[in-house]
Amino acid sequence: MHILVTNDDGINASGIISLVSEFTPIAKVTVVAPDRERSATGHAITFHKPLRAEEVQLDVEGGGRAWAVNGTPSDCVKLAIKALLPEPPDLIVSGINRGPNLGTDVLYSGTVSAAIEGILFGIPSIAVSLAAFTECSFATAAHITRTLIHQIGGRSLPPHTLLNVNIPPLPLHKLRGIKISRLGFREYKNIFEERRDPRGQIYYWLGGQVVDCDEESVEVDIGAVKKGYVSITPVHFDLTNYELLEEVKTWDLSL
Amino acid sequence: MHILVTNDDGINASGIISLVSEFTPIAKVTVVAPDRERSATGHAITFHKPLRAEEVQLDVEGGGRAWAVNGTPSDCVKLAIKALLPEPPDLIVSGINRGPNLGTDVLYSGTVSAAIEGILFGIPSIAVSLAAFTECSFATAAHITRTLIHQIGGRSLPPHTLLNVNIPPLPLHKLRGIKISRLGFREYKNIFEERRDPRGQIYYWLGGQVVDCDEESVEVDIGAVKKGYVSITPVHFDLTNYELLEEVKTWDLSL
Repeated sequence: MHILVTNDDGINASGIISLVSEFTPIAKVTVVAPDRERSATGHAITFHKPLRAEEVQLDVEGGGRAWAVNGTPSDCVKLAIKALLPEPPDLIVSGINRGPNLGTDVLYSGTVSAAIEGILFGIPSIAVSLAAFTECSFATAAHITRTLIHQIGGRSLPPHTLLNVNIPPLPLHKLRGIKISRLGFREYKNIFEERRDPRGQIYYWLGGQVVDCDEESVEVDIGAVKKGYVSITPVHFDLTNYELLEEVKTWDLSL
Repeated sequence: MHILVTNDDGINASGIISLVSEFTPIAKVTVVAPDRERSATGHAITFHKPLRAEEVQLDVEGGGRAWAVNGTPSDCVKLAIKALLPEPPDLIVSGINRGPNLGTDVLYSGTVSAAIEGILFGIPSIAVSLAAFTECSFATAAHITRTLIHQIGGRSLPPHTLLNVNIPPLPLHKLRGIKISRLGFREYKNIFEERRDPRGQIYYWLGGQVVDCDEESVEVDIGAVKKGYVSITPVHFDLTNYELLEEVKTWDLSL
């Protein structure tokens, strides 16, 4: 098996090293990742400037080839598949992200967007995030990722669907299990902080505190992680609202 | 009615001027748009540097206030709603984009992402794109947009769903009508051009030619526009693959 690893925290992030260390004994591993942090870049791609890929050496014994790219996570997947690799990988794993990618936040997520880019090419893809910003045990999360890949194994993922995995920041023995969940809704309050620069001009910092609306149900990714479960959500890229499609057809619209 | 206009082509794009000119007689209009072109930024947001909003004067008689923001389309919508406007607008119109936003390409689209940001705040939103890069008649497209808004009128859009409108580059009398469609699939070939800089180092330009797989059916947005119809697709932000959700629950996964 040939696994392509990417992320949005940048090639030097701990999440990448943990995955490569975990996968190297079981697969050929290639890394193509942004040369710096590119969090919250969503599905952005780069066509206003050229991309460069610099081959680097990762600090993992027996690890495969690795490239740092001056682009977004989606650029990395495109470039890996269409320019750097002689043939497409069997699996793409994006992560392990520092911080959760839950609910509507997946829209902003470079980690999930890289996996979406993978399934656009028809390659089975998994996005993995550790739901903590400090004291992250990437080794545990990487171990869980390997276990899941092993179990999914023969059961090839359906085309055009990725698995979005979020792991609570707990030791393995404290995790309550796995929940297959749907994406929830995340709202933020106080999302801008207004400040003045030394010349008196206003500027804004995007920040805010999350207000989770879906914390209670373990059927929802946010609630599942909150209650100590590893959450797995099947995610596709079709944003059509089919429920509304037939209704809109009945509207009396004309030019 | 108060309409917020934004886009991803930048505040000076013709598509914005056309919309403001068309809307000014029927509504209060505010513009908050990127200070430069930000195409293909997807749903990227900016939190690694501060945002600034510079008030500018648009060349439209009687036009409302306008701000140029050093951020992405999604930043613009967030900043408008949470910092610049005293109260949320009644409607957000994102566009008119120079070029189509069809099928899987909506994932990369700043235009559509701005409208998604709108519905995340519960504000009815419409993304409008003109399916041509040259000889664009933005005035015709703006006129069609106004007609559609008028017709949708009392029928308030359902929460959390936007309309993604794509208009073929034809004179009004040559348009064949309206099709309510689902999003199709767009593939590209030759997506990277490899070049060498004067020092002999390789770099890559992202480009490519589109290979539309869904050109034949007017039930699909790509086919509808190809055959001369204005395409309208209801789009939501829930990427959960519900069809697969129950199946994955039957998989024998454990930690």
